[in-house]
Amino acid sequence: LDEAAMAQARDLQSRLTKPPGSLGVLEELSVRLAGLAGRCPPPLPEPAAVAIFAADHGVHAQGVSPWPQEVTAQMVANFLAGGAVVNAFAAQVGAQVTVVDVGVAAPLEDAPGLLVRKVAPGTADMTRAPAMTADQARRALRIGIEVAGELVAAGHRCLLTGDMGIANTTASAALIAAFTGLPPERVTGRGTGIDDATHRHKIDVVRTALTRHGLLAQSAREPGDGRTSPAAAGPPQGAAASAGSPASTPDGAPVSDPLRVLAAVGGLEHAALAGFILGGAAARVPVVLDGVIAGAAALVAAALCPQAMAACVAGHRSAEPGHTATVEHLGLRPLVDLHLRLGEGTGALLALPLVQGAVRVLHEVATFDSAGVSDK
Amino acid sequence: LDEAAMAQARDLQSRLTKPPGSLGVLEELSVRLAGLAGRCPPPLPEPAAVAIFAADHGVHAQGVSPWPQEVTAQMVANFLAGGAVVNAFAAQVGAQVTVVDVGVAAPLEDAPGLLVRKVAPGTADMTRAPAMTADQARRALRIGIEVAGELVAAGHRCLLTGDMGIANTTASAALIAAFTGLPPERVTGRGTGIDDATHRHKIDVVRTALTRHGLLAQSAREPGDGRTSPAAAGPPQGAAASAGSPASTPDGAPVSDPLRVLAAVGGLEHAALAGFILGGAAARVPVVLDGVIAGAAALVAAALCPQAMAACVAGHRSAEPGHTATVEHLGLRPLVDLHLRLGEGTGALLALPLVQGAVRVLHEVATFDSAGVSDK
Repeated sequence: LDEAAMAQARDLQSRLTKPPGSLGVLEELSVRLAGLAGRCPPPLPEPAAVAIFAADHGVHAQGVSPWPQEVTAQMVANFLAGGAVVNAFAAQVGAQVTVVDVGVAAPLEDAPGLLVRKVAPGTADMTRAPAMTADQARRALRIGIEVAGELVAAGHRCLLTGDMGIANTTASAALIAAFTGLPPERVTGRGTGIDDATHRHKIDVVRTALTRHGLLAQSAREPGDGRTSPAAAGPPQGAAASAGSPASTPDGAPVSDPLRVLAAVGGLEHAALAGFILGGAAARVPVVLDGVIAGAAALVAAALCPQAMAACVAGHRSAEPGHTATVEHLGLRPLVDLHLRLGEGTGALLALPLVQGAVRVLHEVATFDSAGVSDK
Repeated sequence: LDEAAMAQARDLQSRLTKPPGSLGVLEELSVRLAGLAGRCPPPLPEPAAVAIFAADHGVHAQGVSPWPQEVTAQMVANFLAGGAVVNAFAAQVGAQVTVVDVGVAAPLEDAPGLLVRKVAPGTADMTRAPAMTADQARRALRIGIEVAGELVAAGHRCLLTGDMGIANTTASAALIAAFTGLPPERVTGRGTGIDDATHRHKIDVVRTALTRHGLLAQSAREPGDGRTSPAAAGPPQGAAASAGSPASTPDGAPVSDPLRVLAAVGGLEHAALAGFILGGAAARVPVVLDGVIAGAAALVAAALCPQAMAACVAGHRSAEPGHTATVEHLGLRPLVDLHLRLGEGTGALLALPLVQGAVRVLHEVATFDSAGVSDK
C-alpha cells in the first residue's frame, strides 16, 4: 500500500462536504483503495467482472451434500443462460459474468461466457488421498492468475470472485481448519442447508481428511473438545497473525507449505480463486470476495503472499460459521451481512455498489472550500 | 400486505435455482414487497428517487451543534450543484435527487431539482415552546404526502428518504425518546461528531424539551438512572408493540396524539418525512429509510398509521444510538451496517441495489424445472 496516496486520501476525506468520519467503514475502504492504486483518487472500480470458477469434488462420494454432483454442470449451463441469481445480481449492479471450468466432472465445451480450462474432471476424495496432485494445484492456481490478468487486460477495474461446485463447502471447511487451526466443528457449516445428521457426518469427514493429511491442529484433536481448548477458544486473530496459528500445526504440515495444504484438501476452484486473488492484487485492482469458498481460497493466497490481502474486500459475511472465522483471521470486515449462503459470487456483487460508492466520493464530492460550505 | 401474493412469492422462492432460504434477509424482503404490491413478482423498485427534506431547527440556539445554521442552506446549494455525497451515491445507483425546502431559515428560490414548499423559516426552540404549531406540523406532513405522490406519478417505483438540517439529530432524539419511552441518554448521539461536553449538554437539552412538553417517560425521569430502570432497560419491542410503551407516557401526552408530539419536539423535515412515508405506503411503493432522522419520522408515521410500516425498508443502521432503538421498536432490520452517520439519504441509497436485487430475483431467476437443474 502506498502510504503517500493513503495520506492524500485521508486529507481529502477531511475536506469533503460531510462531517469527518461520517462515512464510517467506506471512508477507511476508500483510503485503502487509494493505497492499493498508488494514487488519490484511485480509479473508479468499474467496469467490474465476476469470475465463477466451477469444479467438482471427490469428497462428494462421502455423502456430504444432498445435491447430486451433476448440479455443478447444470448450474454452469444456468449461468450461461442467464438464469441464476448471480446473473440477476450482476445485471442489477452492471457487472460482467465469466464462468471458468477448472474442474467440472462433466465434459463442457467452450461457449460465450465460458472458459474451459479444465485441470481435471474433479478432485480426488480427500478422505482417501490428496484431493489434487501438486502439479494440478499449481496449474489451477496459474489459471486463476491468468483469468485475472485477462479480465484486467480487457479493461475491468474491479474483480469479483464467484464459485460453483457441489460439496465445496466441505473442502472449504477443511482448508479453513488447516489454516486457522480451529477444530472442524467450529468451521463446518450446513452449506446448502443439510440436516443435523448430515452436518455431523460432514464434520467427521472434514476431521478424517485433516487427520489423514496431518493437518489437524493439536488443539483440535479431541472431537467435541475443541470448543473449550485454549487455542480454539482463543480470540480471533488479526491479519498480522495470519501466519502464527497454522505454523504450530504438527506432523510436518506447517502452512509454510500452503500449496501442500491446498492440494491435500482443497478444490480446483479454490486453487484457481487463490490465483485470481493474487493476479488481481498484482495488477493493483480491488478483488471483492464472495463468501466461504472465496474466504478459504483467500487463506491460501494470504499464506502464499500476505500483501495480496491489501487488494481484498470482503463482500459479505456468509451464514457459514467458517466464514466468520476466516474473515477474522484475515483481518477483513465484510460489507454486507444479510445471512446469505448462496455462493456463485452473489455476496460480492451486492457489495460492489458500496465499493464503487466509496471511491466515487473521492472523485465527485465537493470540498468545503469549493462548495462554499462553512466548516465547523 | 396481500397474503396470497406473499404465499406465491414464498412458493416461487422455493422453486428457484438456489438452495431454499439461501438469500437470507433478501428472500424475506422479496416476499414482503410482493405482499405490498399485491402481486408476485412485485414491480421492480426502479426508477428510484430520493427526496431530501431540508429544514432548520430553533433548538440550534441551545448550542447542540458546532456547525452554523447557515450550513443547511449551503448544503442545499451543494445538493443542487451535485457536490454532496448523496449525489455521488445517487449517481452510483441510478436514483434521482429532489430537494424539498420545508423549512430552511434562509430564503431559497425554486431551481431545477429544488421544490420550495417552505412552511416556516425553521422551527421554534423546543426547549422554550412547541417547535411547530399543530397547523405547521399538519402542513409539513401534507407536503411530504404530496411529494411522494408526485414522484410516484412521475413513474418512480421506489422512494428513498433524505434529510438536511443542522441540529436535526437533537429533534430526532427527542422524538425517539417520546415514542419509545427510552431516556434521553439512551437515544441521544453525537450527530456530526460532537465532543463529550457538547454531548452531555445535548442530552440535557433533549431532557429539558421533553420535560417541558410532558413527554418524558416515567422511567426516564431520573437523569442517569434510566439505564437501570425496568422500562428503559427492557428488551427491545417488536413492531406489534409500537403503540405500547408510549401509551404509558404520563402528563396527558400519550402517543395516541402523535401529531402533538411531532409538533412539540419534531422538525419540519420530520413532519414531511412522516408524510412521505405515508404517501409512499398509500401508493404501495417501497420506501427505503435512511438513518436516525428518517427513523424518528417513521415513529411518527407508525403512530399515525401502523400499516405504513409494511412499505418501509430500513436502508442502514446509523451509528447514532437512537437509531438502533428505533429500528428495534419498529421491528425493522437494517440492510447495510457500516457505521455511517452522514444522513442526506446516503444510507438509503447504498441499500437500494440490495432491495432491487431482492425483487429482480423473482423476475429473472430460473426455476429448477425450467433450467433443467436437479433438485436435491
